[in-house]
Amino acid sequence: MKNLLVTATLFAALASPVLADKMEISPNGARKTALGPQANFTGTVMVESYFGANEDLPQTGALVTFLPGARSAWHTHPAGQTLIVTSGTGWVNEEGGKKHEIKPGDVVWCPPNVKHWHGATSSTSMSHIALSNVREGKNVTWMEKVSDEQYNAP
Amino acid sequence: MKNLLVTATLFAALASPVLADKMEISPNGARKTALGPQANFTGTVMVESYFGANEDLPQTGALVTFLPGARSAWHTHPAGQTLIVTSGTGWVNEEGGKKHEIKPGDVVWCPPNVKHWHGATSSTSMSHIALSNVREGKNVTWMEKVSDEQYNAP
Repeated sequence: MKNLLVTATLFAALASPVLADKMEISPNGARKTALGPQANFTGTVMVESYFGANEDLPQTGALVTFLPGARSAWHTHPAGQTLIVTSGTGWVNEEGGKKHEIKPGDVVWCPPNVKHWHGATSSTSMSHIALSNVREGKNVTWMEKVSDEQYNAP
Repeated sequence: MKNLLVTATLFAALASPVLADKMEISPNGARKTALGPQANFTGTVMVESYFGANEDLPQTGALVTFLPGARSAWHTHPAGQTLIVTSGTGWVNEEGGKKHEIKPGDVVWCPPNVKHWHGATSSTSMSHIALSNVREGKNVTWMEKVSDEQYNAP
């Protein structure tokens, strides 16, 4: 007999232990929200970890909220990342690219090793679910901050 | 020079061709909504494919909406599935388990080969993002329908 296991703890850690053969529910309200570290973000960014990687799932998931003007630093993902915008309006750009506006329901694929940033617009907040694939224990490589000039450029 | 490629087509097909080294935006409104096939669902279920698997991402993503009373058939996933509830209130259960209510922000992990179902409650709709991991080209194994007795059981 299997029983549905309601737990947030097993589910929240990167590289968590092997999961049992039971469904697990990580309830809303049971996960802490952390501030995005200043080394990797400009402005106020909130990160709520949805799930960590496990041996069946080489991926982490998080809800990331950017206040107006906030954005990630430039970065790459060793195994790619999918963003699903859930609220607000934001901007995304890649090196040498043109800035694009993203809105709820837009889905963005960032291929491995493409240098890019994402964040809110200068006047609106933006939240997205970030699904970051893990390769050799790593899901991101952080680089320099996005300057105001880069951020505000068209 | 890389440019951000705005496209829905490359992004929508399972086992799509190798993706270029550019970010891709699949905009909301550009993806068709399909009805969940009667063989695999009871009641009215809408499926909007968010992204297909590619060589960097052995996973499919979709927004699935269940009208009141609607649910999946019993099924398993060869490589597991993550559900992120986005609206409404639903139910989820596994074989031999107890039915659990799920609400927006709840995140459910279905380990590989655990027989289960998910859907709306009998009186409310429910939408979730379904992230289905792919193994050997397959992300689900469908089984028999969930009977009214099974669905309405506590």
